[in-house]
Amino acid sequence: MIGIGVIGYGYWGPNVVRNFHSLNDARVAVVCDKRPESMKRAKQAFPDVEVTDDVSRLLMSPDIDAVAVVTPVWTHFELAKAALENGKHVFVEKPFTSTAEQAEQLVELGSKKNLRIMVDHTFLFTGAVKKIRQLIDADELGKLYYYDSTRVNLGLFQHDVNVIWDLAPHDLSIMDYLIQDKPKAIIATGERHLNTYEDLAYITVYFEGNMIAHINVNWLSPVKVRTTLIGGTKKMVVWNDLEADEKVKVYDKGVQITAGQGVYDLLVSYRSGDMWAPKVDQIEALRAECQYFIDCVTDGKEPFNDGYAGLKVVKMLQAADKSIKAKGRMVYL
Amino acid sequence: MIGIGVIGYGYWGPNVVRNFHSLNDARVAVVCDKRPESMKRAKQAFPDVEVTDDVSRLLMSPDIDAVAVVTPVWTHFELAKAALENGKHVFVEKPFTSTAEQAEQLVELGSKKNLRIMVDHTFLFTGAVKKIRQLIDADELGKLYYYDSTRVNLGLFQHDVNVIWDLAPHDLSIMDYLIQDKPKAIIATGERHLNTYEDLAYITVYFEGNMIAHINVNWLSPVKVRTTLIGGTKKMVVWNDLEADEKVKVYDKGVQITAGQGVYDLLVSYRSGDMWAPKVDQIEALRAECQYFIDCVTDGKEPFNDGYAGLKVVKMLQAADKSIKAKGRMVYL
Amino acid sequence: MIGIGVIGYGYWGPNVVRNFHSLNDARVAVVCDKRPESMKRAKQAFPDVEVTDDVSRLLMSPDIDAVAVVTPVWTHFELAKAALENGKHVFVEKPFTSTAEQAEQLVELGSKKNLRIMVDHTFLFTGAVKKIRQLIDADELGKLYYYDSTRVNLGLFQHDVNVIWDLAPHDLSIMDYLIQDKPKAIIATGERHLNTYEDLAYITVYFEGNMIAHINVNWLSPVKVRTTLIGGTKKMVVWNDLEADEKVKVYDKGVQITAGQGVYDLLVSYRSGDMWAPKVDQIEALRAECQYFIDCVTDGKEPFNDGYAGLKVVKMLQAADKSIKAKGRMVYL
Amino acid sequence: MIGIGVIGYGYWGPNVVRNFHSLNDARVAVVCDKRPESMKRAKQAFPDVEVTDDVSRLLMSPDIDAVAVVTPVWTHFELAKAALENGKHVFVEKPFTSTAEQAEQLVELGSKKNLRIMVDHTFLFTGAVKKIRQLIDADELGKLYYYDSTRVNLGLFQHDVNVIWDLAPHDLSIMDYLIQDKPKAIIATGERHLNTYEDLAYITVYFEGNMIAHINVNWLSPVKVRTTLIGGTKKMVVWNDLEADEKVKVYDKGVQITAGQGVYDLLVSYRSGDMWAPKVDQIEALRAECQYFIDCVTDGKEPFNDGYAGLKVVKMLQAADKSIKAKGRMVYL
Repeated sequence: MIGIGVIGYGYWGPNVVRNFHSLNDARVAVVCDKRPESMKRAKQAFPDVEVTDDVSRLLMSPDIDAVAVVTPVWTHFELAKAALENGKHVFVEKPFTSTAEQAEQLVELGSKKNLRIMVDHTFLFTGAVKKIRQLIDADELGKLYYYDSTRVNLGLFQHDVNVIWDLAPHDLSIMDYLIQDKPKAIIATGERHLNTYEDLAYITVYFEGNMIAHINVNWLSPVKVRTTLIGGTKKMVVWNDLEADEKVKVYDKGVQITAGQGVYDLLVSYRSGDMWAPKVDQIEALRAECQYFIDCVTDGKEPFNDGYAGLKVVKMLQAADKSIKAKGRMVYL
Repeated sequence: MIGIGVIGYGYWGPNVVRNFHSLNDARVAVVCDKRPESMKRAKQAFPDVEVTDDVSRLLMSPDIDAVAVVTPVWTHFELAKAALENGKHVFVEKPFTSTAEQAEQLVELGSKKNLRIMVDHTFLFTGAVKKIRQLIDADELGKLYYYDSTRVNLGLFQHDVNVIWDLAPHDLSIMDYLIQDKPKAIIATGERHLNTYEDLAYITVYFEGNMIAHINVNWLSPVKVRTTLIGGTKKMVVWNDLEADEKVKVYDKGVQITAGQGVYDLLVSYRSGDMWAPKVDQIEALRAECQYFIDCVTDGKEPFNDGYAGLKVVKMLQAADKSIKAKGRMVYL
Repeated sequence: MIGIGVIGYGYWGPNVVRNFHSLNDARVAVVCDKRPESMKRAKQAFPDVEVTDDVSRLLMSPDIDAVAVVTPVWTHFELAKAALENGKHVFVEKPFTSTAEQAEQLVELGSKKNLRIMVDHTFLFTGAVKKIRQLIDADELGKLYYYDSTRVNLGLFQHDVNVIWDLAPHDLSIMDYLIQDKPKAIIATGERHLNTYEDLAYITVYFEGNMIAHINVNWLSPVKVRTTLIGGTKKMVVWNDLEADEKVKVYDKGVQITAGQGVYDLLVSYRSGDMWAPKVDQIEALRAECQYFIDCVTDGKEPFNDGYAGLKVVKMLQAADKSIKAKGRMVYL
Repeated sequence: MIGIGVIGYGYWGPNVVRNFHSLNDARVAVVCDKRPESMKRAKQAFPDVEVTDDVSRLLMSPDIDAVAVVTPVWTHFELAKAALENGKHVFVEKPFTSTAEQAEQLVELGSKKNLRIMVDHTFLFTGAVKKIRQLIDADELGKLYYYDSTRVNLGLFQHDVNVIWDLAPHDLSIMDYLIQDKPKAIIATGERHLNTYEDLAYITVYFEGNMIAHINVNWLSPVKVRTTLIGGTKKMVVWNDLEADEKVKVYDKGVQITAGQGVYDLLVSYRSGDMWAPKVDQIEALRAECQYFIDCVTDGKEPFNDGYAGLKVVKMLQAADKSIKAKGRMVYL
């Protein structure tokens, strides 16, 4: 039985508490939030859990083996560091930290203390992403050409970060999970219209080879879109996360170039075959992730979404942020 | 009755011939194509029209008042120039020319000779674009924030130009028609996978002020998408050109920033109201455009999609092309 | 503060408990279910609520003012009757009873005892149905021509009733709520394929005048459909309950017949104008309904979805059931 | 080279002329229509074809081997009969005739004279229907449970027939083509709102065994729907004819009943697997049908969509018409 302390009971915290609470081999011992209203909500929903506004209560508690940090990103580093220093494993909300340097320090600390770090890249635990990974691993798609994601809707405006730090961690962590090629450089364009933070951004990631990724994030769209196209030499995928069923569609479509008669004569031929929507597991991704965290802590094994995975995403976020500030100047990774 | 000569009877030429042919005040006198197969098709479809492979026949003919140039882009300049020099008005397929310099020469020549030049930006004559223009003119959308277009599908690969020259002229001409702000600089990223031409590209256009545009064009997408989001301070538009009806949807949605209590305290509030799909004219755009060309020639009035409009699009295409070759370096307009 | 007892903690019961539990002026005192597993689940989810398998505990309790009956339909009559006889107001799951006779008895008993009866026609509390009712009340649609609902999906097979008793109560209660005309006769066709209950049915309801309704219910559909078309002389509505936003679309479309030149010469003209998707409240319908029940009990006012409304639906269900058994013979209401 | 005469150049006639005109082994010799405006249109579109208003010109012409009857249904019998009597093969627009008796006479006459009769059930030549037939023939769907079609839109009101005669021939001919079971009885309900003809109808067809079909046709729908669900023991199909690609989707979904422990204890289990959209040929169905007609005439072979197939559809139309007039009384076939 792993004792869990959760710091932060705002928008996402209740989901983290509920899921750890529902597991057989975990026990949420303490929830910590400074806001009286949040404390009240936590108490009401989980009468059997201690609620406090004193984070040291939680960091010091011998009942607590692991700490979930579900607070604004600029607080992640200090809280996770304190938890690790107190011998607690940590589960940190995405994005992992505000800077790559912070992430590196935490990774090092975790390693030194032999403690697990897991970054909450929830999407990696969805049926859709797992299915796409299987398709790629089984070489169903062939060599990948591009990854093109659109993640737009109206709000939720963040008060402390721009749209890149808010929405792109999803795509960057999924990309990192699915694509074997190494990202090389980032160009981000975008604009701010309402306050001091960019509310829409267009991010291009160049990889080694000719793989390319593009991420369109926007807080000002009248409609919600969550669509990713993935093109490969053999097949192509459309993942529409807003579909109730049939989230992942695999198209037996492609283009081939063959040499024609003349030296410079290239013939382009199209292949257009069936479409196939594999059954995708309908699970609550966060529940699976919480269970996986407990398993990693229990068995002492390193999660795949560890601090290093979190670091890679933070590096790309920093690069994109630097690029957008410099009006789209290329930033190497 | 305006006599028309059409040069080029490949993919788009038959549509141009058919539409001019159907007008009461125009007469297609000659169609010219060098390919025997094209000549045969033209002869079969329009038994009453002379078909030739000799372009000078057409350029010299006293029966011909205006020439439509529906050939590959690299031939536009020479053909349009010859037509103007022979005193013919010209209707030129988009993109107008291969370089801004060529476009400028043609504009100057047309002006000197007092001949009409129309560039075939067909989309400007669709019910959808006309409706969006009306909404903007009536200030229904407020000040524009962004224009974000996705135009992707499988093929048709061009043999002589990249995906920017093939697909982006649509978006750039529509953008130029709808947006009053002046474009300032362009960044284009993208990649080639199959041959020497880029097959996907992501183009950002920075405007004066904080208006921004983005165009996603892709020859390697398994699905066809033709969707444009337009955000304004008052309302937002989604134009999905693949919808049979309801192509244009107007959302009474928005975001407002108001000052909060503290100096740096900004309050973001969302507005989410009705959606409205205005009736859009179901006309054949090209037919309306051909009629408009005949009217302009007859009445000696300057079309709004004239050589200068064509030049502006070519300038942006050149800038985008230069940028993509330089891996996304910003190119000023 | 109204004390509530809930009988039945299977599929729907937990929602009823959760919603009454969340209200300020209600208190769920007792939950009753005979199944140990259900009792355990209730205890876990609501540690502050008494759980029992003894229904008389609940019926006798002085702490309980009102009883919610959330059990299989064949048990509704006995349980609701016992509750009324013990002086409790009742909230009964749809369909109200197994027979019209039972419903009439309960209505009479409630009236005699001056107790409230509410039948849980949840859909009447959704934003979509409320909006359509507003449109009809404001005469936006004109005189109604037809109501055509499709409600199909895979499963959930019921073990004690056919697809009509399972799915049609939704449509029949909505129809009864929206349509002022009086239903006159019912024809139901359908078939059974897997067991002794019909798994798909097509129900036509003839009204006085030329209004007509049709309901397509099916447990064997590979896809889920929840779409209702409503046609009127002025406008027409499409309600797609599976859309996230824009559930209700109002079409300014119609047909008009005008006399032509000759005596028998009728001219049909179509009108096709804008489409409009009014904003629909995004509320939890059941919560609004529970609050309304508490209000009716507190204020002694008769709910619109009372026992009589429940009776009308049961009469139509019985008629449809009789018709389908007689291979589509018309059954008058 | 088969000489063709076409009678009727209204809505569908031009398509028939165009397609026969495009075939290598057919020659449209004469088009006949009494309306001067139609004659003018025909002359303009096909300058090489003789146009007449004298049907006997066409019936007597030795250049004409086969006659296409593309006129209102009430004229089919006389025209087709005259053509057969003059030794011409006939291609008749659907529905074949106004009565089963007429259809029987024509079938008999065609047989006696050894002439081909083809009824224009165009949908049977679409890629979608051919694909579904292949799936059924390959026993991919298992034994069929139901066929449920919705074919609704605004207009086109016919002046001489009701919505059943206008729209249901499509579904009935497809049904007859796909389903091996024998239809036994028909119940049709519906209503008229604007003139003397029913403008919406709901048709149930009972088959031998427990196969059942349902057809929803409506001239008063604000939206166009062309969707057919087909359920079988093994797999289920959704055919949406309005989809650009992916018209046919095959769902590996189903329900199974197995005996439980007790005698009356049936266990229902659901199967929910992948979805698969097989590639469907993108051909012009009418062109394929015209070619098939020419082949049948040339080779003297009996088409599968012959007079007898037309007769079966007319029988069902008559039964449905009789039923709807009798307010849904069952009519045996």
